[in-house]
Amino acid sequence: MFLADVIGTVVSPVQIPELEGQTLLLLRPVTPDGHATGRTRIGIDKAGAGEGDRVIVLDEGNGGRQILGDPRAAVKTVVLGVVDYVEENGKLQYDHRNSAKLAPLG
Amino acid sequence: MFLADVIGTVVSPVQIPELEGQTLLLLRPVTPDGHATGRTRIGIDKAGAGEGDRVIVLDEGNGGRQILGDPRAAVKTVVLGVVDYVEENGKLQYDHRNSAKLAPLG
Amino acid sequence: MFLADVIGTVVSPVQIPELEGQTLLLLRPVTPDGHATGRTRIGIDKAGAGEGDRVIVLDEGNGGRQILGDPRAAVKTVVLGVVDYVEENGKLQYDHRNSAKLAPLG
Amino acid sequence: MFLADVIGTVVSPVQIPELEGQTLLLLRPVTPDGHATGRTRIGIDKAGAGEGDRVIVLDEGNGGRQILGDPRAAVKTVVLGVVDYVEENGKLQYDHRNSAKLAPLG
Amino acid sequence: MFLADVIGTVVSPVQIPELEGQTLLLLRPVTPDGHATGRTRIGIDKAGAGEGDRVIVLDEGNGGRQILGDPRAAVKTVVLGVVDYVEENGKLQYDHRNSAKLAPLG
Repeated sequence: MFLADVIGTVVSPVQIPELEGQTLLLLRPVTPDGHATGRTRIGIDKAGAGEGDRVIVLDEGNGGRQILGDPRAAVKTVVLGVVDYVEENGKLQYDHRNSAKLAPLG
Repeated sequence: MFLADVIGTVVSPVQIPELEGQTLLLLRPVTPDGHATGRTRIGIDKAGAGEGDRVIVLDEGNGGRQILGDPRAAVKTVVLGVVDYVEENGKLQYDHRNSAKLAPLG
Repeated sequence: MFLADVIGTVVSPVQIPELEGQTLLLLRPVTPDGHATGRTRIGIDKAGAGEGDRVIVLDEGNGGRQILGDPRAAVKTVVLGVVDYVEENGKLQYDHRNSAKLAPLG
Repeated sequence: MFLADVIGTVVSPVQIPELEGQTLLLLRPVTPDGHATGRTRIGIDKAGAGEGDRVIVLDEGNGGRQILGDPRAAVKTVVLGVVDYVEENGKLQYDHRNSAKLAPLG
Repeated sequence: MFLADVIGTVVSPVQIPELEGQTLLLLRPVTPDGHATGRTRIGIDKAGAGEGDRVIVLDEGNGGRQILGDPRAAVKTVVLGVVDYVEENGKLQYDHRNSAKLAPLG
């Protein structure tokens, strides 16, 4: 499991019944203090997350299938929760209430 | 799951019944704005994807087997869908209608 | 399995029953002599670990579910134990009794 | 799944019944045009591959066990097939008939 | 599966029944000619390996559980065998009989 920022969305007519109607979030893995680290992933949202949120991501197929409630779902990456706080070495590195939400399109 | 561009194909007499007749696509992982990121993979096409398409890739064995409808298939990497749009920080990073298809061979 | 230092915690209202009440630890993978190596992870604590401890981490879903005693738990990363000693090439690289605990917040 | 070149062999008295009599191939992951990329792996040969061949590798335990026909086999990396052609962006990057076989020992 | 050198041990009161009494080896992944490559792992010894040995490592949970004979074991990384020879491009890169064992502690 790792931290990521929701940076956008992907639209695709995925031909998999379990993924129909699911929002596909663009997820950028980040360090505790918010620097990008590692490759962008695409994940299913199960936490009501939106652009600008910092989230906890599970990147494992069997767990993802359990969360979706479907043992046959073709899914690997799932957003488990929106983060309230990240504390590192006794220092508050992230506070959801102070996070700058990204400006919406247009 | 991650974004990738279909950059070519691989031809191999793979001696695995479940893979017979399947197209083996060369997949280059990309960032939301299209820069290459990470190692090229070989994937099975389940979305009618072709060279020049941006796609969503699932890289997990159990999910791949479900999509192929065969619990014994020796497969890990599957193309789930062709991408229509990628939106990042309120900006349209990829629009399938404007993507430059790569020129065919010859 | 790999070595990591516990460097902090993450607070998130994760909507997964199996994770309710679990402490989410920030884990920084380290080399035997304590240099950071690789991406920070978020793990469930099953060893009474706290900030400043060096720990053994299991990063595999099925094993994690066994430890939590729930075959349906959506979990991948689990802290298996606090490390007492790390010995490398005949040299003591880490001794838990001499490790400098990180100062608490405030 | 990924492309790799067979660059050698490993000899080891592995004490696992399912691996007895299997050839352990040294596999170097390569880009479509043949540059080394990523860490060398050890794989089981199920395709009659030899030194100098470019091959398709599956790196996933459950699929590997299916190919070996043994649901209990302790195996993760399996060579699925020898590659005939790799085509990238309309250009033939690899043709098995023209590949320079590595010189045998002695 | 990959090559690694055994470079030390880890001592930890891991509270997992299946791991009690098992030696936890520090494993440094290496290239065929012995250069370090990639992050150090912690593995269970099933091959009588010791410091200074080059070994074959399996890094996959289900296979690891089979080797330990316990379908519920929380384990991912297992040493399958001590390497006798590594041959690369027709050249002997490693010969166990000539390998310099690391000096013991003290």
